[in-house]
Amino acid sequence: MTKSGKVRRRLRLGMVGGGPGSLIGPVHRLAARIDDRYEFVAGALSSNPERARQGGREAHLAPDRSYETWQAMVEGERNRPDRIDVVAIVTPNNVHYGPAKAFMEAGFDVICDKPLTMTVEEAEDLVETRRRTGRLFAVTHTYAGYPMVRQARAMVAAGLLGKLRLVNVEYVQSWLTESLEATGHKQAAWRTDPAQSGAGGCLGDIATHAYHLAGFASGITPEAICADLTSFGPGRQLDDNVHLLLRYADGARGMIWASQVAPGNDNGIRLRIYGEKAGLDWQQEQPNELIFTRFGEPPQRLTRAGPGVVGVPAPYIPHGPAGHPEGYFEAFAQLYTDVADQIAARDEGHAPPPQSLLVASVEEGAAGMRFVRAALESNRQGGTWVPPG
Amino acid sequence: MTKSGKVRRRLRLGMVGGGPGSLIGPVHRLAARIDDRYEFVAGALSSNPERARQGGREAHLAPDRSYETWQAMVEGERNRPDRIDVVAIVTPNNVHYGPAKAFMEAGFDVICDKPLTMTVEEAEDLVETRRRTGRLFAVTHTYAGYPMVRQARAMVAAGLLGKLRLVNVEYVQSWLTESLEATGHKQAAWRTDPAQSGAGGCLGDIATHAYHLAGFASGITPEAICADLTSFGPGRQLDDNVHLLLRYADGARGMIWASQVAPGNDNGIRLRIYGEKAGLDWQQEQPNELIFTRFGEPPQRLTRAGPGVVGVPAPYIPHGPAGHPEGYFEAFAQLYTDVADQIAARDEGHAPPPQSLLVASVEEGAAGMRFVRAALESNRQGGTWVPPG
Amino acid sequence: MTKSGKVRRRLRLGMVGGGPGSLIGPVHRLAARIDDRYEFVAGALSSNPERARQGGREAHLAPDRSYETWQAMVEGERNRPDRIDVVAIVTPNNVHYGPAKAFMEAGFDVICDKPLTMTVEEAEDLVETRRRTGRLFAVTHTYAGYPMVRQARAMVAAGLLGKLRLVNVEYVQSWLTESLEATGHKQAAWRTDPAQSGAGGCLGDIATHAYHLAGFASGITPEAICADLTSFGPGRQLDDNVHLLLRYADGARGMIWASQVAPGNDNGIRLRIYGEKAGLDWQQEQPNELIFTRFGEPPQRLTRAGPGVVGVPAPYIPHGPAGHPEGYFEAFAQLYTDVADQIAARDEGHAPPPQSLLVASVEEGAAGMRFVRAALESNRQGGTWVPPG
Amino acid sequence: MTKSGKVRRRLRLGMVGGGPGSLIGPVHRLAARIDDRYEFVAGALSSNPERARQGGREAHLAPDRSYETWQAMVEGERNRPDRIDVVAIVTPNNVHYGPAKAFMEAGFDVICDKPLTMTVEEAEDLVETRRRTGRLFAVTHTYAGYPMVRQARAMVAAGLLGKLRLVNVEYVQSWLTESLEATGHKQAAWRTDPAQSGAGGCLGDIATHAYHLAGFASGITPEAICADLTSFGPGRQLDDNVHLLLRYADGARGMIWASQVAPGNDNGIRLRIYGEKAGLDWQQEQPNELIFTRFGEPPQRLTRAGPGVVGVPAPYIPHGPAGHPEGYFEAFAQLYTDVADQIAARDEGHAPPPQSLLVASVEEGAAGMRFVRAALESNRQGGTWVPPG
Repeated sequence: MTKSGKVRRRLRLGMVGGGPGSLIGPVHRLAARIDDRYEFVAGALSSNPERARQGGREAHLAPDRSYETWQAMVEGERNRPDRIDVVAIVTPNNVHYGPAKAFMEAGFDVICDKPLTMTVEEAEDLVETRRRTGRLFAVTHTYAGYPMVRQARAMVAAGLLGKLRLVNVEYVQSWLTESLEATGHKQAAWRTDPAQSGAGGCLGDIATHAYHLAGFASGITPEAICADLTSFGPGRQLDDNVHLLLRYADGARGMIWASQVAPGNDNGIRLRIYGEKAGLDWQQEQPNELIFTRFGEPPQRLTRAGPGVVGVPAPYIPHGPAGHPEGYFEAFAQLYTDVADQIAARDEGHAPPPQSLLVASVEEGAAGMRFVRAALESNRQGGTWVPPG
Repeated sequence: MTKSGKVRRRLRLGMVGGGPGSLIGPVHRLAARIDDRYEFVAGALSSNPERARQGGREAHLAPDRSYETWQAMVEGERNRPDRIDVVAIVTPNNVHYGPAKAFMEAGFDVICDKPLTMTVEEAEDLVETRRRTGRLFAVTHTYAGYPMVRQARAMVAAGLLGKLRLVNVEYVQSWLTESLEATGHKQAAWRTDPAQSGAGGCLGDIATHAYHLAGFASGITPEAICADLTSFGPGRQLDDNVHLLLRYADGARGMIWASQVAPGNDNGIRLRIYGEKAGLDWQQEQPNELIFTRFGEPPQRLTRAGPGVVGVPAPYIPHGPAGHPEGYFEAFAQLYTDVADQIAARDEGHAPPPQSLLVASVEEGAAGMRFVRAALESNRQGGTWVPPG
Repeated sequence: MTKSGKVRRRLRLGMVGGGPGSLIGPVHRLAARIDDRYEFVAGALSSNPERARQGGREAHLAPDRSYETWQAMVEGERNRPDRIDVVAIVTPNNVHYGPAKAFMEAGFDVICDKPLTMTVEEAEDLVETRRRTGRLFAVTHTYAGYPMVRQARAMVAAGLLGKLRLVNVEYVQSWLTESLEATGHKQAAWRTDPAQSGAGGCLGDIATHAYHLAGFASGITPEAICADLTSFGPGRQLDDNVHLLLRYADGARGMIWASQVAPGNDNGIRLRIYGEKAGLDWQQEQPNELIFTRFGEPPQRLTRAGPGVVGVPAPYIPHGPAGHPEGYFEAFAQLYTDVADQIAARDEGHAPPPQSLLVASVEEGAAGMRFVRAALESNRQGGTWVPPG
Repeated sequence: MTKSGKVRRRLRLGMVGGGPGSLIGPVHRLAARIDDRYEFVAGALSSNPERARQGGREAHLAPDRSYETWQAMVEGERNRPDRIDVVAIVTPNNVHYGPAKAFMEAGFDVICDKPLTMTVEEAEDLVETRRRTGRLFAVTHTYAGYPMVRQARAMVAAGLLGKLRLVNVEYVQSWLTESLEATGHKQAAWRTDPAQSGAGGCLGDIATHAYHLAGFASGITPEAICADLTSFGPGRQLDDNVHLLLRYADGARGMIWASQVAPGNDNGIRLRIYGEKAGLDWQQEQPNELIFTRFGEPPQRLTRAGPGVVGVPAPYIPHGPAGHPEGYFEAFAQLYTDVADQIAARDEGHAPPPQSLLVASVEEGAAGMRFVRAALESNRQGGTWVPPG
């Protein structure tokens, strides 16, 4: 699972946004830690100076690299010898364009949340800026990071499906079924507000993910779309349901259904691609499997490290063996967090938090050894009943 | 998703084993990074000095804290002012007991892989040592770290199932269906070798996980077991299939089926618990859901952050909203890794590795904005066909 | 499972079409037998007189009621005292209109396959004829017969979903992925031939089922549709993929996706309905369950006779208890057929056909009794190993 | 779907038991009708003469063949020229032996419910009687009638799994979780009463099905079993949970878990068989699929008429194409029943029963035709919005 020999420098990561109360900022930082390729060293974590400082302390930033504004951060970082390599922009949609452009102009690579900007014009200016500055600029369409989505992309690219005919994607949620924004819910409020989200609601928030996923996996792009947007939530200004038909240049067809008002669906992303020779089916809530069917053969269930996954270079992320689903690492991490909680509680002289479970102490480890001994003894006697110790 | 206010010190983590070629060492280090509660600062990563040094360099250890033996590590760390807080022992089973005891004696907390030791006597000596030294000692029964397993435990403890009747666990794999150990496969070789694994094969390797999971979730312990162990692999000395019946003190009954020879199963752990009032069903390969059925009502599908999950304190790990399965973070991390690859390739003047995909560049971000504009335009015209730009 | 007391006359059933080689004719007759409400007594089973006679003999028709043409059947039946009550028309699409009209005019009730006719004008003439004659006229949209579809309809009608917002149906097959019609395949040939199928291919064949199912379950009807039909099969004249958007009078929206070219799908019908208060999800290939989710509550899995199915009158068909899926009866019937095969073989002095399995002979019944005795004995001895007999 | 040419005589079927209030009697008669190989012509449907007569009327028996006792039926039938061919015995367990023996002695073939008798001695006498009389005798282990169970059996017999290693069967229900028998529930009462059920509760009722299924599909038989039976229901005399280990002569191993007290399970039968080369997995509540995995290859989903099902003779039952699950026929039958209800209501001058739905009238058939026309029109215009008419 490790790479051979080579010692790689960790990149220095900065962040704009993502301070206390942020949903996605901690996710970015966690994601940056998992593969140990980044150190998080600088940030302008909030537009509120006090919250920015507090966020910096919680994230173990050096005080002189916890900035009060992103403008100060550009200035502070540009001339340091240990300046950041890349900045992650995780602010609301209407604060993407300014820092994205400024950091590129100052020579930094950029990772930015989606949707990219408020308008097409801003987006195109960022494209132009990137070309001129030669910087890297990545937009975080997370779902394209799943191993089995990459497997799908590789299988399409390898021609296993033949010429494509259909690319159907759905992205179905339920959380805006009622007028959550009227209750003061922060995430609901800005996502349903044209001033902060732009002109698309569900369209910009999740249909863009579906659209990107369709293109990422299929490798083809549409030449015409036909849209039917609806706003079902009482008093809601932006669309909360998107029905879309797509026509591709080479005759393929597509559908996108994105919804935030379908009870029973949490984050139901499904990608189906069909060609002349085979079909693929992937669902985000069971991300570890990809159903692949050659026409005239039984459907096969492919898993990340399982058999039948061929011709796809392994990703760098150190994944476990087959059957250890994405998520196994979080389960493992929970154990480490529990230990840290226990140690902190002991060192600080108070009780550990109630949710902290030392899932298996040495006593339980010893009980496991006695279990093994008893099972061997029972078996040795021909299958008798033995106390486990 | 962040915790309020408090700034916590990161614990200093050391490791015994886990150098180049190790399967589980990198998983431990990744797990320690996810929640950002540890810094990895010292290690004796291999019994081979050269490999130990190489592992230390790859893991960014300071040279004076990359030790050649675990004995040297105990001595080197015990008197440092910045000495490690906790050591993770990730060596083969027969090298658990020695370092576990020595690190406890030297005043360190311990995280240790399972099964704990080679014999019950060693295990009981570790229990005694832990009591005497007052150290923390955690055994990594990973599957108990899944949020929905903890939800199950909490529901049982809250009495939602009533008095328990049945606790049935299965842990089914296929990888030893053929004599993989005869091919020189390192993992298969030591796991089927009594000298390195102890007297139990499948029994010690995975049935112990099933046994721990049964106790962790149910809170009850058996008073008698009846075992039927089989070795199906040609020439195999240790068991590769375990059939077990269990009787609990309070009249409950259990079954454990663990196998390494069942084609079609990668890592199929399933936990089912039934009481007088309700039943629970969880499967590791779909870890995000827990089926809960009150007698006389329809089965409910509970998910980590979804409705119906009550009375269970949230874990510390910053998980996403409902529908973002465990594994979402790995997908996100893949994006960061891709960016790091691209930057490294550029800085070093070569092509990025073929598997590195900048899943969405700024050009694609801009395409997404044009998609939104086109969809709004199509919809504004009553649902006409519009080019996406 | 039986109805109380009342003795009901069996209806006399006739059939047009459905002779040797027919796919759907035997299905109609089987369906008519299941609930024992019909006797099949007359037919014009083929347009070929010899095949018509042969079909009549195989179906145990009296020779004078096995007609050579449907016209002869109208004349022959209309004046009999024991004339048929109802006629089933199971011919290709282009032979629906004629007999449907003639049998109604002659005073018979009609059951007719879909799509109803070749043109809207013919269809409207049948509507007018039905009004004038007062006959019953049923079109066989089979999928609306599933118990859980009726449960869905009843739940919508009872207001459990609140005002409806979305009705999305898909009906996805793969069998026309290649040009099956070019190989002489009879079913493929007529379904892709405008002269026999009418102007719609996939549209008339299966999208009409999806359209009916949407209306049947939701109770609402669209006021506008937007269609994108494609023909992917080389040289194919009729559409084999249908993408449809729907707008309903009361503001609800819908999608229909019907396809015959999606490898990995056999007969994948899925119905999803969402309202202001709850959502429903049903899939034909797992017909025994209906997922019902009230907004803000966990999804519930409803089954035909299971808990949570309220307010819906039971259908007449004698179904088994919960957990005995639709299909249990076919499994049971297979046993009876096996016995019939064995008896026929014995009586006729030859070996039974190879596929005929007497699944459990009296010897195996006795083995089962010995198994019970051995299990009781093992248990009585505290759980020892006992030979089963 | 029809068989070629041959006209087969329908067998004459009689029944002992199965009158008003019976659960399984109507299922037998329905099963006998499905494939049209039997005519139901005689019965002693109840031990209560009045109920026997009433049952005969409801089942359209001729009055002289609706007998008051099974003894009278033996006498009445044995000398008729049109005597029954086969008798189905569907009485409680304690009334199997008597009629089974008597009908064999009188020269009739027998179909009998399981468990066969109350004691092993009775069972062995039936075996001896059958040998002496040369009659056919079938025990209704229904689950062995599913097409995919037969496919499993055929694959094992064809050697596709190699030498067998494991045969694990579970049969899990929940209906006896509480003391249903104390409420006067008829089915619960006799199944928990040793006098009517014999010495095994769950053991005789459903573990015998699991045991038969294991042998039917695997073709091997155990040489020793180890049983742990439990009675969890308060005051219950017979076991309601069965944990069983099995050892086969050739070294294979097995487990059986049967339960009636596991909330969340309706009728959860699962059969898993593993050999040196491959594994099989089948679940009764999704009976149409069989998961087949060759070691080292991805799991394949086989369906009845789908690809990959080779070397297995088709059963006689006229099944539909792939994707039309077992159960499709019941759905179809519901439509016929609805029509019969509507006709009966009209003829008798009252309203049809509320549950009777004419799922698609001719008006709806015409609406379907207008839908097709509108979709073609929308498509012809390049994908515009068109009213469906």
